[in-house]
Amino acid sequence: MRSLTVLSGGMGGARFLQGLLHAIRTDKLAGADRPDVTVVANTADDIWVHGLKVCPDLDTVMYTLGDGIDLERGWGRRDETWSARDELAAYGVEPTWFGLGDRDIATHLVRTQMLDAGYPLSAVTEALCRRWQPGVRLLPMSDDRVETHVAVTDPTAPSGLRVVHFQEYWVRLRADVPAERLVFVGMDEASPAPGVVEAIMEADVVLLPPSNPVVSVGTILGVPGIRDALRATTAPVVGLSPIVGGHHVRGMAEQMLTAIDVEVSAAGVAGHYGARSGDGVVDGWLVDSSDAALVPQVEALGIACRAVPLMMTDPDATAAMAVAALELVG
Amino acid sequence: MRSLTVLSGGMGGARFLQGLLHAIRTDKLAGADRPDVTVVANTADDIWVHGLKVCPDLDTVMYTLGDGIDLERGWGRRDETWSARDELAAYGVEPTWFGLGDRDIATHLVRTQMLDAGYPLSAVTEALCRRWQPGVRLLPMSDDRVETHVAVTDPTAPSGLRVVHFQEYWVRLRADVPAERLVFVGMDEASPAPGVVEAIMEADVVLLPPSNPVVSVGTILGVPGIRDALRATTAPVVGLSPIVGGHHVRGMAEQMLTAIDVEVSAAGVAGHYGARSGDGVVDGWLVDSSDAALVPQVEALGIACRAVPLMMTDPDATAAMAVAALELVG
Repeated sequence: MRSLTVLSGGMGGARFLQGLLHAIRTDKLAGADRPDVTVVANTADDIWVHGLKVCPDLDTVMYTLGDGIDLERGWGRRDETWSARDELAAYGVEPTWFGLGDRDIATHLVRTQMLDAGYPLSAVTEALCRRWQPGVRLLPMSDDRVETHVAVTDPTAPSGLRVVHFQEYWVRLRADVPAERLVFVGMDEASPAPGVVEAIMEADVVLLPPSNPVVSVGTILGVPGIRDALRATTAPVVGLSPIVGGHHVRGMAEQMLTAIDVEVSAAGVAGHYGARSGDGVVDGWLVDSSDAALVPQVEALGIACRAVPLMMTDPDATAAMAVAALELVG
Repeated sequence: MRSLTVLSGGMGGARFLQGLLHAIRTDKLAGADRPDVTVVANTADDIWVHGLKVCPDLDTVMYTLGDGIDLERGWGRRDETWSARDELAAYGVEPTWFGLGDRDIATHLVRTQMLDAGYPLSAVTEALCRRWQPGVRLLPMSDDRVETHVAVTDPTAPSGLRVVHFQEYWVRLRADVPAERLVFVGMDEASPAPGVVEAIMEADVVLLPPSNPVVSVGTILGVPGIRDALRATTAPVVGLSPIVGGHHVRGMAEQMLTAIDVEVSAAGVAGHYGARSGDGVVDGWLVDSSDAALVPQVEALGIACRAVPLMMTDPDATAAMAVAALELVG
């Protein structure tokens, strides 16, 4: 096995990647050389704030693997300061609910300036990674602007609905108002970033980490061409359930699955992705040990399935998950 | 007296304005109501750094009068942090010699975003001042881009000269290489910002604080229309010498005067500004007590002159300078 490709969201994906790299570096992948890892990261959470282009998932992966992440929060920079955020609030400039750390701002300044100079996001990401050395090749899913917007119930709006950027739904509303509908602005016109389709087609295995199946992995799959590549590649595709015991481990997968009428269970998500032998995108699926009873239900979909511990409590536990995923199709 | 207009650079001008406002608020202006003060600030020091529009003189005036300045440095924000600067250095992004503080960055983000949205600098400055309440009406000299560049000796350049932005000359080279020539990029095409000419024409007195006569007051006078307004206004125009005993009190007036072949003395600067009765712009001129011997020389130019203490050691001393300036023409 020479190359792995991972379609990743932010925190969950980054933590999974940490475990995967730990497994690779400690030679836990049975019979394998140390494969190269390509990460295709979700960019539909991206947002322009105070004139700066912010890419939360790309940065969470980059900071996590580059050892710059704030471990406690799981996002943003370690030893962060918040002077600019406080000042922007003193100026009364919106959005006040999206606080940028001072160290983090430097990343966004470099990115924004390169984008303004005409570099595509993929080239910018490569430049930023020259500093962070994440140990993976990190690609945005697309160089085009794609944004997840969420229609939420708002009794004060004439239509009863209000559409907000995903970040506003997640950060300001804390995902605790019902998401009635998801809109992926720009998705139909987007193309995969350079290298994305090739990374899927030429991989030995493609992994879907326990990232949000709707607004992280789902948006990556939504970029025209990526789903086709997943179905066409000779590489097996294995996913890990972000739902354990009918609840997400972190984030807001429950709300997002509910918004698109998918059952909030490890089997529900497997069915949502679907079997490649049918019209879906996965060959294998890991559920948590506590969901072992769901294995037959997933296998009935034509998806190889195994129940293993899926709690990413430390790099060893997470490495074991990555090893189990690869063994499922190995 | 109802209105005063001051043409100001950064640190020296801001400190003078502090004294002037102190004099007004403590009713030290004999027989005067409390006049409104309009400040026309130099913007030829402005620079784009990391994609942000930085206006050092406007901000120094705004922060100083709005009680946000770092008193020790004399520029930038009090209680500043430098996380973004350190990160930008870690990314290796130029210019590394121009460090932006995190609090300061918030100002530049607000400004840059408003400029990008199409607001002119004067409108942006007004918006920023809504927070800072500097107690003066603060106007940029122009909404157009004007930049002072400095040709310095560089034996490694084929021509023997290298042209750098004023900030690079001042901050990186610390003004300690000879300035061979000054170039005011964009000056010929610039117009005074809205309100500037009116503020000069309708003032009861116009003051030139002890700011740099070449790259601060000089650049303001260089904007087509401003010098004409100074010559046409019915208001007397009084200046205060930035040169004391043949040396500048702060900054790099010596280097700049040398670059344009003006004698580095209180009388030399008076002669450079020239008498309004001739083809110059001042009616009155204050020199420091230690330069009292120069008074006849200045008066011989047709400029009323008096020697008073010109060291801005504290607000009372500075207020006394402002009072003396107004008395000279009152």
